[in-house]
Amino acid sequence: MKKYIVVQKYGGSSVANIERIRAVARRVVATKTGSNHLVVVVSALGDTTDELEAMALKLSRDPSDREMDMLMSTGEQISCALLAIAVKQCGHDAISFTGPQVGIKTDHSHTKARIETISGRRIRKALAENKIVIVAGYQGVTDENEITTLGRGGSDLTAVALAKALRARVCEIYTDVQGIYTTDPRIEPKAKKIKTITFEEMLEMASLGAQVMQARSIEVAKKYNIPIHVRSSFSKEEGTMIVKKNEKMEEIAVRGVTCNKSEAKITICAVPDQTGIAAKIFTDISKMDVNVDMIVQNVSHTKLTDISFTVLKSDLPKAIQAAKAVAQKIRAGEVLFDKRIARVSIVGSGMRSHHGIAAKMFQVLAENKINIDMISTSEISISCIISQRHAEKAVRALHQKFGLEALV
Amino acid sequence: MKKYIVVQKYGGSSVANIERIRAVARRVVATKTGSNHLVVVVSALGDTTDELEAMALKLSRDPSDREMDMLMSTGEQISCALLAIAVKQCGHDAISFTGPQVGIKTDHSHTKARIETISGRRIRKALAENKIVIVAGYQGVTDENEITTLGRGGSDLTAVALAKALRARVCEIYTDVQGIYTTDPRIEPKAKKIKTITFEEMLEMASLGAQVMQARSIEVAKKYNIPIHVRSSFSKEEGTMIVKKNEKMEEIAVRGVTCNKSEAKITICAVPDQTGIAAKIFTDISKMDVNVDMIVQNVSHTKLTDISFTVLKSDLPKAIQAAKAVAQKIRAGEVLFDKRIARVSIVGSGMRSHHGIAAKMFQVLAENKINIDMISTSEISISCIISQRHAEKAVRALHQKFGLEALV
Repeated sequence: MKKYIVVQKYGGSSVANIERIRAVARRVVATKTGSNHLVVVVSALGDTTDELEAMALKLSRDPSDREMDMLMSTGEQISCALLAIAVKQCGHDAISFTGPQVGIKTDHSHTKARIETISGRRIRKALAENKIVIVAGYQGVTDENEITTLGRGGSDLTAVALAKALRARVCEIYTDVQGIYTTDPRIEPKAKKIKTITFEEMLEMASLGAQVMQARSIEVAKKYNIPIHVRSSFSKEEGTMIVKKNEKMEEIAVRGVTCNKSEAKITICAVPDQTGIAAKIFTDISKMDVNVDMIVQNVSHTKLTDISFTVLKSDLPKAIQAAKAVAQKIRAGEVLFDKRIARVSIVGSGMRSHHGIAAKMFQVLAENKINIDMISTSEISISCIISQRHAEKAVRALHQKFGLEALV
Repeated sequence: MKKYIVVQKYGGSSVANIERIRAVARRVVATKTGSNHLVVVVSALGDTTDELEAMALKLSRDPSDREMDMLMSTGEQISCALLAIAVKQCGHDAISFTGPQVGIKTDHSHTKARIETISGRRIRKALAENKIVIVAGYQGVTDENEITTLGRGGSDLTAVALAKALRARVCEIYTDVQGIYTTDPRIEPKAKKIKTITFEEMLEMASLGAQVMQARSIEVAKKYNIPIHVRSSFSKEEGTMIVKKNEKMEEIAVRGVTCNKSEAKITICAVPDQTGIAAKIFTDISKMDVNVDMIVQNVSHTKLTDISFTVLKSDLPKAIQAAKAVAQKIRAGEVLFDKRIARVSIVGSGMRSHHGIAAKMFQVLAENKINIDMISTSEISISCIISQRHAEKAVRALHQKFGLEALV
């Protein structure tokens, strides 16, 4: 009988210390059966990545990306070797590999490399010898034998890409929460674990603030239709399945509510209302390597208009600088900014067929006397920028009014 | 003008923390001139290697050598990336490489691999771009892309082997002492730094207890006649040159005194004095993977003899077990052991042409009322096993009587 392959990924908190590594090893060995092969992807131990980064930043404010990859990739190499040792100790043969060793070839974009091909030859050979294969997440190698990393959360990507290359039956993402929730349980204790969610809903939730899985890895899973099971490494309960949309799934208008406080708002006032002025502004700002997210241009009654946009708080200083420069250039008015904002969003692929969802959202916020600063919508989400101090109240109210507490 | 190459190696204590890495970077950049190329080999930061090993041993009493190499090689990868970042910050372009990246090919003996070939192609390319090249010490790769390590002190070997492969003018070993001393300055404060020493003397001193450099790397340097400069990373003073013996060097009978407390003595009493009995004993003991060092068989007046030998203290329990088993088999008497011994040795290639050195040594010990347990000699050294509590006194007496305080 041909065995099926399961890829498991354990995050940094699951392997934060020796005792947890031992627990993961026991779990890995317990899930190995006569009819499956296991490939385990592991992140760096707990805070290793942050510690390594801090050391580099003490030596240089701007260390080269190439050297950072040399440095940061060691974290996962340590954890995969330790986990292999622990799995063997639990009585099953195991072997660890670095990303380069299993042929995870990437482009040359250090610190945010993209996977190009995966050979998987060594993995298949080790599986054929009935070994549990442990792979260092987050890393790859260029065709010139340079070590690369895949960006924060890159171990998820390693797991999904390996699941694709090895035609795994499922990719299990083990984390410190029970699965994907209708909203952040720290904000709303009545949040419910979602049993099944579609790739596109999960993508939207991840990009709007749900931090359980890296967005890029969900994109890859969606593209190749690789079922993902997000679950807790500390319990045996089923978690959340992320799958392709199928007919049997209930059409729920709103699957979840997210909240994101990482952005700040900038407004350029009294912008001359001319064709191409927005292009001019955002070309200049993007040259400063600032990622602009939501953009709103107020309806103009005069020849002057206000343009607001959001950026990551960490980019705020250079974004303000760029905005002031461009404002002067185009003879606009003053530049205002607000760091105390939150983006509250509702997500659900059922929105496409349900009407009045947006209106209901605005109404809920109005009932709670929460002022809306900016609005932005996608096909399956609606986001409102509101004052940060109302964020939790907004999340709880939306969660209740859209009936998410009742979901099973 | 063709530039000459200098290989520098910095040990773990030289890069123990961020401040020291910065100091090494400044030193590296200061020694780069218009007429040289620098290749810098670096060990793991301070206690990293011990910490990684301790983690593995918490997970398993007997972790596989292959996984230990995966784990331990990360220490040097971290330090070479950090040093490259620091050197760049000091204003000179630099690039770090792992052992595998520069093509240090080894055999498959994990944890104690032997270097087979070094390609050096990537190093030459980087040097041609006027970069300072930083190489992770202690590690290599097999033809199957398995990561190997070269054993404790392996970074010295990396440095010497690179110096050979790149035809470097000199291999500089930076350490936390000023060079090689006539004896351990912690025992005898009057110890003098040796200006020049031959490869064979250094080899003898290293194998007898001087811990400044790994013995294997001195062998390689001797084989390929690569001059080594052992010096302090904390000062600009010249250290000790290790070179091939040459005519200009003064013939000094005794170059240094060493002391080694890592061994224990085992005696098998009342061994039947038959041909081949020693072979029988030591074949059985070596099967237990015990490294036997000095062996002394007492002159036999009866048909029974005592055989004594020394082993590393760490091997003592299994050595005793093996000795007891073999004693029973050959119908010998009881097995005694003594952990409280020390080996005190004098080393000097001038011994070959000077007579009476051994006699003088025994006389010095006798004058100091120090009993000699065992004696062993090589062409250029004489070692005595004495009681551990007399070790320091013996070292100081020998150092004085052989006039080492007066050496310049």
